[in-house]
Amino acid sequence: MVMAMPRVSEAHLNARRDQILEAAWRCFARNGFPGTSMQDIFTESGLSAGAVYRYFPSKLELVKATTEHVSQIADDAFDSVVRSEPIPPPDTCVRLVVDALGRIDQLQEADLTGVALHMWSEALREPAIGAAVEAVGINVRRRWAEVATRWQAAGYIAGDADPDDVARLFYGIMAGYIIQKCVIGDATPDQYVAGLSALLPADFSR
Amino acid sequence: MVMAMPRVSEAHLNARRDQILEAAWRCFARNGFPGTSMQDIFTESGLSAGAVYRYFPSKLELVKATTEHVSQIADDAFDSVVRSEPIPPPDTCVRLVVDALGRIDQLQEADLTGVALHMWSEALREPAIGAAVEAVGINVRRRWAEVATRWQAAGYIAGDADPDDVARLFYGIMAGYIIQKCVIGDATPDQYVAGLSALLPADFSR
Repeated sequence: MVMAMPRVSEAHLNARRDQILEAAWRCFARNGFPGTSMQDIFTESGLSAGAVYRYFPSKLELVKATTEHVSQIADDAFDSVVRSEPIPPPDTCVRLVVDALGRIDQLQEADLTGVALHMWSEALREPAIGAAVEAVGINVRRRWAEVATRWQAAGYIAGDADPDDVARLFYGIMAGYIIQKCVIGDATPDQYVAGLSALLPADFSR
Repeated sequence: MVMAMPRVSEAHLNARRDQILEAAWRCFARNGFPGTSMQDIFTESGLSAGAVYRYFPSKLELVKATTEHVSQIADDAFDSVVRSEPIPPPDTCVRLVVDALGRIDQLQEADLTGVALHMWSEALREPAIGAAVEAVGINVRRRWAEVATRWQAAGYIAGDADPDDVARLFYGIMAGYIIQKCVIGDATPDQYVAGLSALLPADFSR
């Protein structure tokens, strides 16, 4: 019992931290970073100012932590793609990632991928957020480069291509999907992926 | 001389309006929409409050007009692609549009494509801006659908593809390029387009 105490306490601390981050995520998705006050986050989380400040001493810290939290969830979703064996072709992989992003929205019962649009905007204004957002982008591209290397071995992309360049394109394809979903709203996963399938060789013979 | 007066006056009015819009564009690109005040725009344009308000009665009107102004310039850049005869393959077309966007930055001597990131963010918060940004997106996609129809006739994309789906993908590819250029900054046009070329059939035989 004596040994169990710190573990319970740590689990409690982590759960409380996640509770604050998810409340902040909902506020930021709704109103952007400049449009969200700390008071909004106290209200949304149902916690006192003191409880929130114990974890996050400023709004900037909360924005950075939210960026990292969102990134971690997106990274977990990505794992389901990278671990597929054999690696599916590029259009199927995009579909898997799009579906994984859709499950994040469902889990949180809100259109939370929209927070990415606020992150990109705020990255241009606030260098500390820019650094966090850049790190997320570099990580996502690293994951796509792993996938591109496997596509190359499977003959899905040109043998002389640089997997890092393919990763740049697929970071762009996913970011562009999120934007379109949020600001135009009529690109279903089926439609978007069909647009990619239309470009690919019918039989992937290279 | 009597006849010339109204023409000169109208040209003057349009030039003044463009002067305000370009000053606003620089401010918005630098600090986002919530982070820009009307005072910032008076200072940047070198005009009085009265002169600016004569053209734009509120910041919201200025944000909407800037969105339309940026859209018009992007649309003009797009014309150089759509008018190409014969239509180049998809990777070359993306290159032409990327280069046209680069010329906008050079012309204005600032990283002005970044304003797109603020537009997408603000579109989620302010319905009037959301409607303007959505209209821009729908127009850009309509242009890509024209191009996709010509790619289909040239055998560059699958014969049974829906050009509107291909347009969704290429809107995404361009939006994703702009994000990456602004928040990560190490995707050159060459690298990004090489990522697309790697997906395409080597000989476009369909």
